[in-house]
Amino acid sequence: MPTNCLGDCFTVNLFGESHGECVGALVSGCPSGLPLEIEEIQKELDRRKPGQSKVTTARKEEDIVHVRTGMFEGKTTGMPIVLIIENGDVDSSKYEEMRTKLRPGHADLAYHAKYHHRDHRGGGFSSGRLTAGIVAAGAIAKKVIGYFSGINIAGYTKAIGNLEAQNIDLDEVEKNIVRCPDPKVAEEMVKLIEKVRAEGDSIGGLVEVIARGVPLGLGGPRFDNLKGALDRAFHSSGAVTAIEYGRGIGARYMRGSEFNDLPYSLTRKLPSFATNNSGGIQGGISNRNEIVARLTIRPTPSIGKPQKTLDVNYEAVSLVISGRHDPCLCPRMVPVSEALMAITLADVLLKQRAYEKF
Amino acid sequence: MPTNCLGDCFTVNLFGESHGECVGALVSGCPSGLPLEIEEIQKELDRRKPGQSKVTTARKEEDIVHVRTGMFEGKTTGMPIVLIIENGDVDSSKYEEMRTKLRPGHADLAYHAKYHHRDHRGGGFSSGRLTAGIVAAGAIAKKVIGYFSGINIAGYTKAIGNLEAQNIDLDEVEKNIVRCPDPKVAEEMVKLIEKVRAEGDSIGGLVEVIARGVPLGLGGPRFDNLKGALDRAFHSSGAVTAIEYGRGIGARYMRGSEFNDLPYSLTRKLPSFATNNSGGIQGGISNRNEIVARLTIRPTPSIGKPQKTLDVNYEAVSLVISGRHDPCLCPRMVPVSEALMAITLADVLLKQRAYEKF
Amino acid sequence: MPTNCLGDCFTVNLFGESHGECVGALVSGCPSGLPLEIEEIQKELDRRKPGQSKVTTARKEEDIVHVRTGMFEGKTTGMPIVLIIENGDVDSSKYEEMRTKLRPGHADLAYHAKYHHRDHRGGGFSSGRLTAGIVAAGAIAKKVIGYFSGINIAGYTKAIGNLEAQNIDLDEVEKNIVRCPDPKVAEEMVKLIEKVRAEGDSIGGLVEVIARGVPLGLGGPRFDNLKGALDRAFHSSGAVTAIEYGRGIGARYMRGSEFNDLPYSLTRKLPSFATNNSGGIQGGISNRNEIVARLTIRPTPSIGKPQKTLDVNYEAVSLVISGRHDPCLCPRMVPVSEALMAITLADVLLKQRAYEKF
Amino acid sequence: MPTNCLGDCFTVNLFGESHGECVGALVSGCPSGLPLEIEEIQKELDRRKPGQSKVTTARKEEDIVHVRTGMFEGKTTGMPIVLIIENGDVDSSKYEEMRTKLRPGHADLAYHAKYHHRDHRGGGFSSGRLTAGIVAAGAIAKKVIGYFSGINIAGYTKAIGNLEAQNIDLDEVEKNIVRCPDPKVAEEMVKLIEKVRAEGDSIGGLVEVIARGVPLGLGGPRFDNLKGALDRAFHSSGAVTAIEYGRGIGARYMRGSEFNDLPYSLTRKLPSFATNNSGGIQGGISNRNEIVARLTIRPTPSIGKPQKTLDVNYEAVSLVISGRHDPCLCPRMVPVSEALMAITLADVLLKQRAYEKF
Repeated sequence: MPTNCLGDCFTVNLFGESHGECVGALVSGCPSGLPLEIEEIQKELDRRKPGQSKVTTARKEEDIVHVRTGMFEGKTTGMPIVLIIENGDVDSSKYEEMRTKLRPGHADLAYHAKYHHRDHRGGGFSSGRLTAGIVAAGAIAKKVIGYFSGINIAGYTKAIGNLEAQNIDLDEVEKNIVRCPDPKVAEEMVKLIEKVRAEGDSIGGLVEVIARGVPLGLGGPRFDNLKGALDRAFHSSGAVTAIEYGRGIGARYMRGSEFNDLPYSLTRKLPSFATNNSGGIQGGISNRNEIVARLTIRPTPSIGKPQKTLDVNYEAVSLVISGRHDPCLCPRMVPVSEALMAITLADVLLKQRAYEKF
Repeated sequence: MPTNCLGDCFTVNLFGESHGECVGALVSGCPSGLPLEIEEIQKELDRRKPGQSKVTTARKEEDIVHVRTGMFEGKTTGMPIVLIIENGDVDSSKYEEMRTKLRPGHADLAYHAKYHHRDHRGGGFSSGRLTAGIVAAGAIAKKVIGYFSGINIAGYTKAIGNLEAQNIDLDEVEKNIVRCPDPKVAEEMVKLIEKVRAEGDSIGGLVEVIARGVPLGLGGPRFDNLKGALDRAFHSSGAVTAIEYGRGIGARYMRGSEFNDLPYSLTRKLPSFATNNSGGIQGGISNRNEIVARLTIRPTPSIGKPQKTLDVNYEAVSLVISGRHDPCLCPRMVPVSEALMAITLADVLLKQRAYEKF
Repeated sequence: MPTNCLGDCFTVNLFGESHGECVGALVSGCPSGLPLEIEEIQKELDRRKPGQSKVTTARKEEDIVHVRTGMFEGKTTGMPIVLIIENGDVDSSKYEEMRTKLRPGHADLAYHAKYHHRDHRGGGFSSGRLTAGIVAAGAIAKKVIGYFSGINIAGYTKAIGNLEAQNIDLDEVEKNIVRCPDPKVAEEMVKLIEKVRAEGDSIGGLVEVIARGVPLGLGGPRFDNLKGALDRAFHSSGAVTAIEYGRGIGARYMRGSEFNDLPYSLTRKLPSFATNNSGGIQGGISNRNEIVARLTIRPTPSIGKPQKTLDVNYEAVSLVISGRHDPCLCPRMVPVSEALMAITLADVLLKQRAYEKF
Repeated sequence: MPTNCLGDCFTVNLFGESHGECVGALVSGCPSGLPLEIEEIQKELDRRKPGQSKVTTARKEEDIVHVRTGMFEGKTTGMPIVLIIENGDVDSSKYEEMRTKLRPGHADLAYHAKYHHRDHRGGGFSSGRLTAGIVAAGAIAKKVIGYFSGINIAGYTKAIGNLEAQNIDLDEVEKNIVRCPDPKVAEEMVKLIEKVRAEGDSIGGLVEVIARGVPLGLGGPRFDNLKGALDRAFHSSGAVTAIEYGRGIGARYMRGSEFNDLPYSLTRKLPSFATNNSGGIQGGISNRNEIVARLTIRPTPSIGKPQKTLDVNYEAVSLVISGRHDPCLCPRMVPVSEALMAITLADVLLKQRAYEKF
C-alpha cells in the first residue's frame, strides 16, 4: 500500500499530532449521495473523547469535528472528505523532558531511530490521540455499510485484567463508563481501574467487536483475506498485542469435528451455520455469520511510576511521566475498534460490488 | 492492494489449483545480483511437502520447483521470478462428490456464493496446497533478508492441543516430525496426532515464528504498522484463527509497569531491552528485539468423520471426506509461517532503505 | 503501485525474458464464470507474433499460449490466470557481444546502471517480446469488457513516416500486413518499410486505438483519471514517445469555442456529443464518446547500421546488431496497444461497478 | 492505486472544492528532517494563484498555505503533512445556473452521470482550483529532490496557438506574464491572449517541463515505467490532451539511426549522450539526460460565448458562462506541471534508494 493509506476503494489517510494544531483524517472513495449529518460523526467522537469519565485521561478536549470538504447540501459528493479536529488543551510543557528521554513502551525509541527528527510532544503522530481521526472516518464508514448493506457494528470491553464479562447484553454497553456489556462486571472493572490508577500504574484488557448483517462474499482468498485486511486496520491503533477471530486461541484445543461450523439452510437462498467458531470468515470471505474479532489491548504505556529508560544519546536515564493518561485503554478503544472494522468493511463491500453482478 | 498481491517493493502473487496443472508464485521487485541456488528453494519446499512423515497427508508430491524467469547465470536479475511447482499426484476422483457438496470448515460455501463457478477439486485455489508457492517465494525472501541484513527466521510448533513445548531448543526443531523444539513433548505430540487421526478427526495447535537480527526501524506508524503487514501475510494461509505478538493475549493481565520493555544501552549505538513483551515491534516499527509472532492454527477442516452440510442448492446433505489430509496442520505450517514472515520483512526492509540514508 | 503490477481489480503482472525459457502474464481479479476459449487468446497472439510477414522480424516463434491456472471446464474461476508462452527460436549466440556492449536506443545502459546483473540476451525482460504476455492478458480483458459491457477495441497503423491513412476503414486493417485502415496507403507503407529495412535502418509511426461502446462514468477525477491510467499502460511497451487523446497536439491551435464538445440528447437517457475533440474522456471520466488514443511509435532501436556506443565499463565501442528485428514496430504494436487499452478498461469497468448501483 | 492517491513512497492526496471552504493536499512519506520554510511553498503558490496578471482569471485569492501537520521546529517529521489553502473569493451566485446546466468541455456531464450528487459551484473538486494543492505538495517534492539528489525542475510556456518560443532562455520565464522563455514571442503571446479574451474565447498551447540533474536509474521497466508514472500525474490536471517525451510526435518521421541517442563516456563513471531524442528515459528508466516532457494544453473550457448544452435532465439548453476564467491555461499550468513532475520524481527517487545500495 502507498504510505499512510488504508483501503483501496474506500480509503483513509490519517494526519496530525497530539500537541500540534490538529488531528484528522482524509476519506476518499466514499460513495456520493450519502446523507450525512455532522452529528453522526460527532456522536462517535464523543464516545472516544478524553475526559469523558473518571476512568479516562483528564485531558480536556471537546473534539469537535469539522467536515471541510466532500459534502454538499447534506450529502457526500463522492469526492475526498477532510475531517479535522482542532487540538485545544495542548499543554506541552510536561513533555519537555521527552525531547531527550524516550518513553518506555511507546514508539519513542523506534521513531527516534527511524526518523531522527521527532515531535516529542505527547508522541506526535504516534499518540493515541490520532485515533480521533480513525473514529471520525469510521463514522462515515458505518454510515456507508449501514445505508447500503445493513451491516452494523458493535464493540465492547470484554475483559480488564482477569475480570471478564459473563453476560453479553449490548444494550448495557454505553450505560457504563468501561463499556462492558455485563453491568455487574462493569462495576468491578471501574474499581479495578481506579485501584490501578491510584498505584500510578495501568492495566490491559480485551475488546470484542462484532459485525452483524454482513452479506456473504466480502473479502477474498489468500492475500485478499478479510481477516488480514481487518488486522491491518486494527494494528494501526498501536495498542493491540493479539487479534482473534471466532474461537481464536481456543481453536488450538479443538478437534476438527468440533470446530467446523456446519452449514444448514435457513431458507433456500440463505445458508446459516449451527456455530460460529470461525468468526464469520472462511477462506478469507465472509460467510453471513457475525464477524467476531477480539483484540487484546496492552496496558497503557504511560504510567506514573518512575521507569528506567534511555535518552536520545542512548544514555541511561530515569523518567517519571507526568502527563494525563488513561489507566486502561479499553473503554476508549471500543469506538476506535468499531471504526477500524467499519472502514475495512466499507472498503471490501465496495470491492465486492465490483464483481457481484457478474 | 491490487487483487492477489502481497507487498509493495518485494511483491508476491500466487496462482494454481490443488488438482489443476500446477501451483506457484510470482516474485517481483527482488533485488538484482542475488546469488540463488534452486536447492535453497527446494530445501524449503521439502519441509512443506506432503507425505514427508506419518503425521502428514499421504498425498505424494515431489514438489520440484522450477524457476522459470528472473534468474541469469545463478543470480537474480531484479526482474519478475516465476516459480512453478507441477502437480503430480492429482487424483480428483475422490472430489467428484464435492462438485455439489460444500465441505464444512472450508471456503467451499463462501467461494460458491462469491464466485459461483468453482474448481471443486481439492478446493482449487483455496487449497492448502497453494502454500507451496508461498514457501518457494519465502525461500527467496529469506535469502534477501539474510544476504542484505542478517535477519534469520525460525519457526516451530509450540503446542498441539494442550501439549506445549516446555523448552525451546531451535536445534531440535527439524529433528522431529512435528517440528517441536522440545523433543520430549514432540514424542507426545506425535502420539496425540496419531490418536486423533485414528479417530478420523483433526486437532489444532500453536506455531511460533521468530525473526532474529532485525534492524531498528522496519515498518512504520499507523497503517504502515509492521504487525498489520505481518498479519495480512499470515492470514493468507487460511488456517489461522489468532495472531499474537510478544506477550500476546497475556498482555491483558499485565500492568504497564510489568509490560513496558525497558531499554538499556548495549553499546552507545545499539539500544537493547530488558524484556520483549511487545514482541519486537513498537509503534508499528521494529525495535531490534526479536520479532515474536504466535499463530493459533485451527484443526484441519477435512476430517474422516461424516458431517452434515449443504450442497450447492443449499439442500441438506451428509458428507464423508475421503481425500488425504493432515490430521494436524502445525508441522507443515512451520515453513509456511516462516515464509510469510520472510516475505513481509523483505518488503519492509526494502522500503526502509528508501528512507534510511536521509 | 506495487512493483510490476498494472490495475487494481483486474490486474496484470508480466514475466519472462526474450531468450530465457518463456514469457507470459499473470492475470488476477478476472470475474468468474467467463467462458473463454484458448483460441480467443491465441488469435490475438497470432496478430502479434514475429515472422508473420515480410515487414516484421524473421524470428520464428509459434507463440502458443498455455493457460496454466484459473480456468475450470471452459470458464474462468475468478482465481489468478497464468498465461505462459514458451520461447522456441532462442538463438542467443548473436547476442554474446551485448554481454558487454550496451545497445543504443535500448534500455541496456539504464538496466546496466540500475540492476548491474543483466540478462543481455535480446534485452531480457526489456525485450519487445514481453508484449506477448500483454497481448495474452489483453485477450482476456477484451473478453471481459465485451461480455459485460459491450465495449470493443480497434487499433490500426495510422501513419508510418510521413505516410498517413486518409480513409479509416476498420474492415481493411487486418487485410494488409501493416494494419493500415487505408489499403492504398498501406501499399506505400509496405514499400517504405522495405526500403528502410534494405538500408539497415528502421522507421517510426503512429498507432491509433479506439474503444467503442464505452459506458458513461469509467475513470475518475484527478489521480484516478482514465487518461493517466491508459498512459501508464501504454508506456509499458517501451516504444511510445507521445500519447494523444482526441485532437491531441492539435488542441494547441484551437479556440475553446471550437474545442468544446457540445452535448446533445440522443435520447432522454443518453447524452451524445456533436464532436469528439476530447477523445471520449472529460475530467478523467469516460463520456460515452469513443475513446481515441494515438501513440507515436519511435523507430525500432535495433538497426543493422554500425553505431557508436559504450560497453559496461563505459568505454567507447562500435556495435553492429545482427539479430532479427522489425524495421517498423507499428504493425505489431497494433494488437499490443489494443491489449493495453483493454486491460485498463477492464479494470476501471470493475471499479466503476463498485459504485454504480449506489 | 487506492482512490485519490498519487505515488507509493512519497504520496499525495488532494481535497477541496472550488467554492467550498478550502482546497489542499495531504503529503505522506516525505523524509524526516527536511528543512522547509512556508515561504518556499508560498512562492510556488504565488506563481499559480489567480489574478496575478491581466492574462489570468480575475478571481481574487491570496492562496495562503497553512501547513497544519507534519512539521516540527522548521523541519519535516516524516509524518503526514496537511496543506490547506482557504478559499476567499467565493462568489457562487454566478454558478447557480450550473446547478442544472452542464458546462460543455468540463467534467460536469461525466460527474453528473457518475456521481449524481454534484457540487456544481465552479466544478467542485474538478475545478482547476484544485491544482493549488498540487502546487503546494509539489513545492515539498521539489525540496526533497533538490535536497537529496540535486534534481531541479523548470517549466515554461513553449507555445500558444501557433506562436512558439524560438529561443529557450530559462532566465526569462518568470520575467513575463505568459512564462515564455523567449521574451519577443512572449509579447506576441500576451497580445494573442488579450485578443482571444476580448472575443469571449480561449486558446490552447504547449507547456514544456524539464528535469535536470536526474540520476541514472529512476523508474523501472514495463508497468514501473517512469513515463507512465509521469503521465499519470500530468493527467490529473484535466487540461492535457497530449504528452510527449523528447522528440515526441516527431519520432514518427525519424529513422532509427537518427533517433537512437548514442552514449559516450563523459568520465569513466558517467555516461552521457550525444542527443536526447528519448527525453531522458529509456526502457522506463532515467538515463541521466534531462527529462523533457511536453504537454499540450487544451483551450480553457469556460468561455464567454453562448454555447448549446444539456441540463441534468438531458434537455437541450443554452448557456453563457459568466464566471472569471483564464483565456489561456498555459501560464498557470507551468507551476502545476512542474509540481506534478517533482512529485513523481520524489516518489521514484525514494523507491530507487530502496534498491540502489544492493
